[in-house]
Amino acid sequence: MKLSETVEWSLHACVTLGLLPPGGALPAKKLSEYHDLPKAYLAKALQQLALAGVLISLDGRSGGYRLGRAAGQITVFDIVEAVEPRSRLFVCKEIRQRGPCATESCEYTNRCNIARVMDQAEEAWRAVLRETTLQQLLDQTLKDAPDKAREKSLTWFDEKVNFRAEK
Amino acid sequence: MKLSETVEWSLHACVTLGLLPPGGALPAKKLSEYHDLPKAYLAKALQQLALAGVLISLDGRSGGYRLGRAAGQITVFDIVEAVEPRSRLFVCKEIRQRGPCATESCEYTNRCNIARVMDQAEEAWRAVLRETTLQQLLDQTLKDAPDKAREKSLTWFDEKVNFRAEK
Repeated sequence: MKLSETVEWSLHACVTLGLLPPGGALPAKKLSEYHDLPKAYLAKALQQLALAGVLISLDGRSGGYRLGRAAGQITVFDIVEAVEPRSRLFVCKEIRQRGPCATESCEYTNRCNIARVMDQAEEAWRAVLRETTLQQLLDQTLKDAPDKAREKSLTWFDEKVNFRAEK
Repeated sequence: MKLSETVEWSLHACVTLGLLPPGGALPAKKLSEYHDLPKAYLAKALQQLALAGVLISLDGRSGGYRLGRAAGQITVFDIVEAVEPRSRLFVCKEIRQRGPCATESCEYTNRCNIARVMDQAEEAWRAVLRETTLQQLLDQTLKDAPDKAREKSLTWFDEKVNFRAEK
């Protein structure tokens, strides 16, 4: 019942992009270097995030990815949903309509009550992801990051980040 | 990110066992007939449920499965956990400790804050499953079931259920 690895990658990539200096952007290649991740797979996730509006992709040599809107306006759910769209943990196969004691399909008017409970649980999962913004992840990341990692990142950003005036 | 089908099967099988007349038990073969499910796979799930104490297995020709305790004392979580034990939706691979800007492992003292949010969401999912008892599923199933399906089930139980005096 695992989420794909790209969910973790995407969350970290969005945090990294949220930490860039204003006007900064990072191409997929540099983001994959920063996280030591396979470029091709990360690139696909970044495209999905851009399609969903979580990120913006700027073309050209000085281009790359940046956040599509303020970090406070992006939820963890937006990121997860971009790379695993409409994913469901529990898929109801209508078992109640099978076997020797089932009756006509039209007589099962409610959604199966087992599915309803599982739906409720998934909704509780989604609610936590919807309540948490990327800004909260950024704030906590800055608090938690070891000093050395923070310093190294600033130096790395200085060297690698592309700057472009347009939003 | 799907739960295995055996979760749905197990939930339905437990509901069915909860609907049996007092003292009744159903072998795996008959439970698989009732739900029109592959016997071998269902049998494995039933063994896992018995191992977890959700069900009791009675040996012999007049044996079979019955609930291991009162339906009000069995939660949906107990059933899910029995067939997908310690499953995690989000697995943290410590991406923050990778790449050119990471520092020594010992400096990352907290659990990654991205993993903490994903943990929180999973805990919210589990909480709903823990709050819902098999008794609640039984009550709702009896309310929702089409009259014809209920009648057919009672007749089927009359023919197929084994009875045994011991608990």
